[in-house]
Amino acid sequence: MTEKTYDVLGIGNAIVDVLAKIEDEFLAEQNLVKGSMTLVDAATATDLYGKIGNAIEASGGSAANTMAGIASLGGRSAFTGKVRDDQLGEIFRHDIRASGVAFDSAAAVDGPSTARCMVMVTPDAQRTMATYLGAAVDLRPNDIDADLVAASEVTYLEGYLWDAPPAKDAFLRAARIAHEAGNKVSLTLSDSFCVDRHRESFLELVRDHVDLLFANEAEITSLYQVEVFDDALQAVRGHCQVVVLTRSEKGAVVLSGEEVHVVDAAKVDNVVDTTGAGDLFASGFLHGYTQGKGLYDCARIGAAAAAAIIAHFGARPEVSLQKQLADTMT
Amino acid sequence: MTEKTYDVLGIGNAIVDVLAKIEDEFLAEQNLVKGSMTLVDAATATDLYGKIGNAIEASGGSAANTMAGIASLGGRSAFTGKVRDDQLGEIFRHDIRASGVAFDSAAAVDGPSTARCMVMVTPDAQRTMATYLGAAVDLRPNDIDADLVAASEVTYLEGYLWDAPPAKDAFLRAARIAHEAGNKVSLTLSDSFCVDRHRESFLELVRDHVDLLFANEAEITSLYQVEVFDDALQAVRGHCQVVVLTRSEKGAVVLSGEEVHVVDAAKVDNVVDTTGAGDLFASGFLHGYTQGKGLYDCARIGAAAAAAIIAHFGARPEVSLQKQLADTMT
Repeated sequence: MTEKTYDVLGIGNAIVDVLAKIEDEFLAEQNLVKGSMTLVDAATATDLYGKIGNAIEASGGSAANTMAGIASLGGRSAFTGKVRDDQLGEIFRHDIRASGVAFDSAAAVDGPSTARCMVMVTPDAQRTMATYLGAAVDLRPNDIDADLVAASEVTYLEGYLWDAPPAKDAFLRAARIAHEAGNKVSLTLSDSFCVDRHRESFLELVRDHVDLLFANEAEITSLYQVEVFDDALQAVRGHCQVVVLTRSEKGAVVLSGEEVHVVDAAKVDNVVDTTGAGDLFASGFLHGYTQGKGLYDCARIGAAAAAAIIAHFGARPEVSLQKQLADTMT
Repeated sequence: MTEKTYDVLGIGNAIVDVLAKIEDEFLAEQNLVKGSMTLVDAATATDLYGKIGNAIEASGGSAANTMAGIASLGGRSAFTGKVRDDQLGEIFRHDIRASGVAFDSAAAVDGPSTARCMVMVTPDAQRTMATYLGAAVDLRPNDIDADLVAASEVTYLEGYLWDAPPAKDAFLRAARIAHEAGNKVSLTLSDSFCVDRHRESFLELVRDHVDLLFANEAEITSLYQVEVFDDALQAVRGHCQVVVLTRSEKGAVVLSGEEVHVVDAAKVDNVVDTTGAGDLFASGFLHGYTQGKGLYDCARIGAAAAAAIIAHFGARPEVSLQKQLADTMT
C-alpha cells in the first residue's frame, strides 16, 4: 500500500458517556434490554438521568473509542463527528485530541447539545446504553473532508450512523471517496437492534461497499436472520474481503476468501465492565492490519486490546460505603 | 442533642473535577507544587486543560465530597454551594442529589461557568489540583438558607471558601446562625497554602467560631508556623471543643479538653489515588459524631472511609496500551 497520512479515519457519533452502576431491576423498570443500545429523545434522556445514581463522564462513541485505541497502540488515527459548541463538546474535543487522534470537525453553533450516552453497568459487568444523539445527528455529507478520507488507508464507519439520515449520506459519501482513492472501507454493525432497524441497507452495504466487516455474534445472526452462529458464518463468507466476527469469551473468527482463523479470547482475571470491548477489538485488529500483519495476528492484537479494556471500569465502582465499612461500623 | 432534619450541612465550592494521570515532570514544567491546590484564572485553566491528557469528569469539591460520603455512610446531609446553569452545573446537581445529599442552591444565570478543578494524579498516587473557581466565587451571604443551617446538627465549612470575599461573608453568616440555633460549627483548613493565604483569619476563626476543627499535618503546622507536628498539637489544644488532626499513613490524633486519642490509619493494600482521603475522613468522623459515638470510634470510622476512597482511582487509570500490550505485539 502507498504511504498515507493516517492509518485509519473513524467516522461516527461524537458522544460523551455518562457512566453509572445500576441493578438489573432498574433495566426492567425502564424497559431497557440488557446489552443493547436504545436511542432516546431529550426528554427521556433527562428523565433517565434523573433516575440514575452518581455518574462520571468520559468521552465515548464507538468509532471514536476505536480511534483512541489505535492511537494508544501507536497507530495514526483521525476522527470525524459532530459536537455542539458546549461544555460536553469541548470535553469530547479535548479528550480525543489528547488521546492522539486528529479531530478537526467544526462544532455546531446552534441546535441540540452534544450527544450523551448513559452507560448503565450491572453487577455482572454488562453495559446497557441509552443514547441521546443531539448534535451528532447533524453530521452531513459536507462534513466529510475528502482530503482526509483520501489520506487514510482505512475509513472505518459505525453502523450507528445509519440512525440519522444525513449521517447515512455522509457515510456513503466517505465510502465512495475512500474507494476512489484506492483505500479500504470498514464497517462495524454496532448493535443487533441497529442491524434490525436497517437490515436491508446493511446487507447491501456489506455486499457492495465494505472491505472489512466487524460484527459480534448477535449482530451477524441478526443481519442474516439465522439462529446459529455457524449459519451466519456461512452466509457472510465471500461478501467482504475480510470479515471479523467477535464472540466475547469464545474468541473471534476471521474469514477472508478461503482463509479462516479461529482465535481465542485473551484471558481476563477480573471482568469489570464490558464497555468498549468491541470497540477496542477493532482498534487492535485495524492497527495490526495497517501495520501489514497477517489476519491471525490482527485478531490476536484485537483480543488483547479488548481484554485490557474490560479489566477496567469506565466509571468508578461506587460501592456503598455503608456496606463496605459494615465491619468497622458495628 | 435535639433531633434535627440533617446531621450535617456542608458549605463549600461546588466543583466538577477533571481527573487525569500525569508524570512528575509535568508539575515542574507548570510550576505546580505536588499535593497542593492552586487557584487559576479562566485563561490558565484553559491552557492547562489543553496540556493534560484524556480526562474523566466527576463531581467534586471538598465539602461536597464529605457530604456525599456522609450520605453513603447512611447519614443525613445537605449541601450549599454555587453552580452556573450550564452542563457542568447540571452534572454537579445531579450527582450530589443522586448521592443522597439535599442540594437546593439556585444556579447563577449569568457570570462565569461552573467551577472546575483539574486533579492531576502522579504515578505515586498523589494528587495536585488547579482550580478555576468560576461561579463558585459568587456564593453570597443571602445564598445561606437560615432554616437549613438551623435544622442541621453540624454546619461544616471548607477553608477554601475564604479565597472569595463574598463566600467568606456567607461562611461567617452560616456560623452565626448555627450557633444561635445551638448547633455545632465545623471547619476544615482545606490546604496548607490556603492556610498561608488566610492565617490571621483562620486563627481567629479557630479560637472564636469553630467547635470541631479538621486539619492535616501540613495545615496545622502552617497555621501555627511551627516545624514539628507535636508543637502544632500543643498550640491548638483547647482552642476548639474537638480538634481532629490527620496524618495520612501515620493515622490521626483527636484532642478534646483533656481527652486525647491516637488512631492508626486503616490498612490499604493498594493506594491508587489519594484524592478525597481527607474529605472522606471527615465524612466518617462527622457521621460517627452525629450518631453519638465516642471520639475514638469517630476517628476509626474516618480512617476506614479514607482508606476505602484511596484504593480507587478517581479517573480510569489510562495506561498506554502500547506499553500494556508490549508482549502481545512483538
